[in-house]
Amino acid sequence: MSATQQLAEFVTRTRLEDVPPATAHLAKRGILDILGVALGAADDEGVAIARRIALELGGNAQATLWADGRQTSVTQAALVNGIMSHILDYDDTHLPTILHPSGTLVAAALPLAEWRGASGADLLAAYLVGFEVEARVSLSVYPEHYDVGWHITGTAGTLGAAAAGARLLGLDLEHAVWALGAAATQAAGLREMFGSMCKSLHVGKAASNGLLAALLAREGYTSSATPIEGRRGFGAVLSTKFDERELTEGLGQRWEVHRNGFKPYACGVVTHPAIDAARRLRALGYEPDAVARIDATVHPLVLELCGKTEPRVGLEGKFSIYHCIAMGFLEDAAGPAQFTDAMVNRPDAVALRRKVQATADPALPEAQARLVLHLTDGRPVEVFVEAASGTLENPISDADLAAKFRALAAPVIGAAAADQVVAMVWDLERLGDVRELVALLGRREGARA
Amino acid sequence: MSATQQLAEFVTRTRLEDVPPATAHLAKRGILDILGVALGAADDEGVAIARRIALELGGNAQATLWADGRQTSVTQAALVNGIMSHILDYDDTHLPTILHPSGTLVAAALPLAEWRGASGADLLAAYLVGFEVEARVSLSVYPEHYDVGWHITGTAGTLGAAAAGARLLGLDLEHAVWALGAAATQAAGLREMFGSMCKSLHVGKAASNGLLAALLAREGYTSSATPIEGRRGFGAVLSTKFDERELTEGLGQRWEVHRNGFKPYACGVVTHPAIDAARRLRALGYEPDAVARIDATVHPLVLELCGKTEPRVGLEGKFSIYHCIAMGFLEDAAGPAQFTDAMVNRPDAVALRRKVQATADPALPEAQARLVLHLTDGRPVEVFVEAASGTLENPISDADLAAKFRALAAPVIGAAAADQVVAMVWDLERLGDVRELVALLGRREGARA
Repeated sequence: MSATQQLAEFVTRTRLEDVPPATAHLAKRGILDILGVALGAADDEGVAIARRIALELGGNAQATLWADGRQTSVTQAALVNGIMSHILDYDDTHLPTILHPSGTLVAAALPLAEWRGASGADLLAAYLVGFEVEARVSLSVYPEHYDVGWHITGTAGTLGAAAAGARLLGLDLEHAVWALGAAATQAAGLREMFGSMCKSLHVGKAASNGLLAALLAREGYTSSATPIEGRRGFGAVLSTKFDERELTEGLGQRWEVHRNGFKPYACGVVTHPAIDAARRLRALGYEPDAVARIDATVHPLVLELCGKTEPRVGLEGKFSIYHCIAMGFLEDAAGPAQFTDAMVNRPDAVALRRKVQATADPALPEAQARLVLHLTDGRPVEVFVEAASGTLENPISDADLAAKFRALAAPVIGAAAADQVVAMVWDLERLGDVRELVALLGRREGARA
Repeated sequence: MSATQQLAEFVTRTRLEDVPPATAHLAKRGILDILGVALGAADDEGVAIARRIALELGGNAQATLWADGRQTSVTQAALVNGIMSHILDYDDTHLPTILHPSGTLVAAALPLAEWRGASGADLLAAYLVGFEVEARVSLSVYPEHYDVGWHITGTAGTLGAAAAGARLLGLDLEHAVWALGAAATQAAGLREMFGSMCKSLHVGKAASNGLLAALLAREGYTSSATPIEGRRGFGAVLSTKFDERELTEGLGQRWEVHRNGFKPYACGVVTHPAIDAARRLRALGYEPDAVARIDATVHPLVLELCGKTEPRVGLEGKFSIYHCIAMGFLEDAAGPAQFTDAMVNRPDAVALRRKVQATADPALPEAQARLVLHLTDGRPVEVFVEAASGTLENPISDADLAAKFRALAAPVIGAAAADQVVAMVWDLERLGDVRELVALLGRREGARA
């Protein structure tokens, strides 16, 4: 069997009963987290535009636009929900490849599951096989594929969405190959778009295109039998490196979802160890007034990507290690509320970030940071973070993940619905019809509009 | 101004009055030709699947599915109509880049023009600026982009469709840049799909994605300001060669539509000079029974791409120079009727193609072929074709192009409607509302179903 056929067999034949419970639990974490991250972006301007266009184009009432509550076709719902999931830069990361896996998967699988009245177990299985496919496609071409300029979440995500779709549609092996093929040939997304609304478009399109691929395949629309590994296939055309073994080695034995990381903070992952350190300093009981200076020693990427000293709007705050450290210390948090335009201009935030001096240390791993707080009385206080929260060595607890979900979702769907979603997802394999879950994702009266 | 801004300015500001009439006429040829080629594929299985999925997903009644007659959203209509346009491998070719330009353009522009009740002049202007954009994007990366495995019609076609859409939507320069950006980041299509239904999917998706890009941009959905020429833009990521000057040099002064070629025959362009030669031999009055042998001297690509000696089904006949020559001689034609399963198995066709011997001559240009007919009485008769019909040196006449349209369209929409379409397109700048044209593209009672 070709590599794509092996992937297709895995997609179609994996039994949820054979997946270790700890692995299935990681899928639930991914689903819960991405729903919160998506709901948190419900009022974003780019989402509003995409929603407007989707409703203008129209579609049969098959699946729900999250937060909005109206229904449209599964592919249009996947587009808008996928865009929502990536807006905040707060979604999960497959750490070996910096693929953001859950947005494309859940934006594709949940609308399709809703349309078909599938069970929570069906959704879980679709997520798991889809995750594995997109992570392995990513591994086969990473890092060259990303380095040349592809947004790997958009490209590999299309195949993950198609795999999840093929699973939910119950395709057989041959048709699942065609689904993966039609997905591979739609894979797109340029890193040139980073910083513009189109970055999130990649996620919505990956979800929507993956679903279209699965639907076409269901009807017998043919593709190449070797869409990923062929001479002019995804691997050869979209990357200078292609390692076919990554697609299939140990398939069904090890699960890439174990290498998925969740973001505790709503900003670039490289800033996270320093934010952890700032929170620990604050937890020691020092007041902002007692701070003379904070010396931060960080990985060189931090200054390269997030070296902005004087952010003026919230988005720039995410790319300022100075603002990030100030937030950790002042707010003990770095969620969406800490990256608003108002917050980056708040006088105490401005004052504190100007006391931060950051130095790059190439010897420091990315997940580590050292902060030395110099008190006004001259004493230094040092904190060293060995593994940032959200890394595989220091994963977020289920409780913290649920708290992140509630903080993002409750302002939109209400606190009661948010609690119900948490309970429902932790018990997903016993949910008879995912429409019960989707019904909770609509905006509640009195919630932010 | 950046190169993309210059393209956007060209798209938004070109006045049809300033386009030379001979240039505008070439646009009409492109529109007429692609409508026939699309209608000729109305009963194709891949088209039927795409149509079924589009109707299952649904959409507001904005634009017509050609031949079918039902309406759906503009993006879904673009998808299905675009797929139709490429099925027969009979669409036009921008000869310097082997881009097939008109499928993506017309499948995007006509549904949008229909939705908005635009005029024939609006459609013509959208086609012209869209053609220029997709041809120039192609030139900037050709041939490396194609050689590595991209289906240039799918990739560059997305930008052409977006340009045509931006023009019809009346976007200003800034919004047109965003439309081109959202298109560039959706560009896709792998040559690995050649030989499967997904090859035509590329054209439908390019049209549909290009329209989506223009619609999003209209609402203010932002993209990079340098989507094509940026460090991680289309040129750098999708090609090892990128010549930015090709995007803008002489823009508005020379028109790439003058380098567009139309296929007289429904098979690979490399076979065309030999088919011309076979038709000339037949025109000399020799009967098949008098043929002892035909020696064909052709460009090496002919044998590489179309060297199949014993085709068994119609599609294989297109890749058999032997069958192609037999058709030219026996049928004086090489349209869809000459590439059916029945035709490649017809005894006289089989007998004649077995008398053909083909030899590659690397010194021969691609557009040339030499045939020597050895009569049963021993006499040789030689014919040399210097420039195949459909090349820039030997373009098809308007009359032949109209005949090709009628042959393809009449079985679907009826002879009377086909004649009306021809007349309407030749006079396109005086058509007040393109819906009059679209109304003629529905299947007629009694036509093939």
